Amino acid sequence: MNAKAGHSGSLYLGIDGGGSKCKVVLLAADGQLLGEGLGGPANPLRGVKVATDSILAATQQALTSAGLGFNDMARMVVGAGLAGVNMPQYFQAMSEWQHPFAEFYLTTDLHVACIGAHQANDGAVIIAGTGSCGLADVQGQVLEIGGHGFPYGDNGSGAWFGNQLVHHVLLHKDQLGPATMLTELLAEQINASDTLDIVAHFMHATPTIFAKYAPLVFAAAEQGDVVAQQIVILGAQHIEKIALRLFSINPPRLSMIGGLAYKIIPYLSDAVQQRICDAAAAPEYGAVWFAQQQRQNLNLVK
Amino acid sequence: MNAKAGHSGSLYLGIDGGGSKCKVVLLAADGQLLGEGLGGPANPLRGVKVATDSILAATQQALTSAGLGFNDMARMVVGAGLAGVNMPQYFQAMSEWQHPFAEFYLTTDLHVACIGAHQANDGAVIIAGTGSCGLADVQGQVLEIGGHGFPYGDNGSGAWFGNQLVHHVLLHKDQLGPATMLTELLAEQINASDTLDIVAHFMHATPTIFAKYAPLVFAAAEQGDVVAQQIVILGAQHIEKIALRLFSINPPRLSMIGGLAYKIIPYLSDAVQQRICDAAAAPEYGAVWFAQQQRQNLNLVK
Repeated sequence: MNAKAGHSGSLYLGIDGGGSKCKVVLLAADGQLLGEGLGGPANPLRGVKVATDSILAATQQALTSAGLGFNDMARMVVGAGLAGVNMPQYFQAMSEWQHPFAEFYLTTDLHVACIGAHQANDGAVIIAGTGSCGLADVQGQVLEIGGHGFPYGDNGSGAWFGNQLVHHVLLHKDQLGPATMLTELLAEQINASDTLDIVAHFMHATPTIFAKYAPLVFAAAEQGDVVAQQIVILGAQHIEKIALRLFSINPPRLSMIGGLAYKIIPYLSDAVQQRICDAAAAPEYGAVWFAQQQRQNLNLVK
Repeated sequence: MNAKAGHSGSLYLGIDGGGSKCKVVLLAADGQLLGEGLGGPANPLRGVKVATDSILAATQQALTSAGLGFNDMARMVVGAGLAGVNMPQYFQAMSEWQHPFAEFYLTTDLHVACIGAHQANDGAVIIAGTGSCGLADVQGQVLEIGGHGFPYGDNGSGAWFGNQLVHHVLLHKDQLGPATMLTELLAEQINASDTLDIVAHFMHATPTIFAKYAPLVFAAAEQGDVVAQQIVILGAQHIEKIALRLFSINPPRLSMIGGLAYKIIPYLSDAVQQRICDAAAAPEYGAVWFAQQQRQNLNLVK
């Protein structure tokens, strides 16, 4: 028997569930890491069954790596931060899940990211990954900005940068816009330079696929490409606006997370850059702390 | 027996097949209109079967209104202008259709629009409808611009205007952008003003759905809304660029068609506006003339 499996009492499971994958951590009551797991998309917008299957698969992995069994799910106090549950109908749908856990506390992926980044203290977080959004959590007041989805929202996100890239390459190809290095960079990347091939490649592209090409815009901007620089400035301006809006409720700290964060930060104003600090912990840990907070609040009420 | 049905010899069928519907006209060899029909989407991107079913349904309607029968399809010389067949794979797929007609000549919807607008003479056309694109046909040289699809292309189209509308309403709601009358206009139109309800409404929106809301932007611009005016100017600038690019091969005429054309024209430069003239005939007539041209060219070769 695995030594770790000796833990009795409550187990804490933290879930960070996004549109493409979900990550879980399994902690003992004293905070010791027992196991980790990775699953598919856990965004109920893609279907509650898909989300719960992904969560259970990741949980099973975490249990296995901890030397625990399926039945130990009944001992778990679970915090889940899932994309999409800011919409009441999806929050409702996930809340009705007949889960196998002892307790299940639900909030958004953005909220657990903020709790994780600031170790359950007040603060703000901006995510610049496939999508873009921000949240500040100050003295119980939660302010959420953006994250409404692509293409009408999520400016400054990976999906937005990728879409801008394709847009400007097509303008160049049609001689409607200036020449840009992006055209050659994209051609190399997708192994096609013909306009129709480019269109065929992106015709049914998801935000995730557009986001894959976002780094090319930053690479071209760094090499002095004016079109790419303009795109980066425009995207960074939107992230800057989110930051300033979050500052309106005076969060003591701001962390930027997501795959594009470190690329965008240098393009933000000094005033914003000076207030940015590293995230203390990953969102899945924030999910555990969220569950502990909720549990405590419930006990206080009782 | 219907008097019209007495026509013997060739019948000409012209098809204008777009992403949401297809229109057909049935003409006698002397150009007399015998019947008309309307079908569903005839864009092979949605599937060749969907496209051919739509075409056959519309053709059947035209035959019925002409007092002709199913077997008369075998007498038809058909010109088809279909969206999507600028892509070789879809041109190929539609060419392989075992059609019931005597002859079947295939080109793009944009091309037949241009032929129709200028009665088979040289000219140029810009479509500003759900999508945006332009084509000039001068002495056998065909220049096609734009029309690559939404969201990376089709600026200045209905889909683009609708998306900009939702984008700016969400910026207003999040206090990331200036207040705009568009917020109230959209709320009235979709009977919802809450951010989450707006997002739920447009989350899976197709270009056609976004395009439905484009007129609101023009309405607000006319009432002096600055945000709406900026969107209109940006969209019109793109259409202007398409026009200037088409002028590079010196088309003697330019027509603007599509549901947004008459709304955009006032925002174009005087230089472009002065060269715009009404389309002489609808795209489905252009499709008939295209078939006749192709037939003549083949006979010349023989």
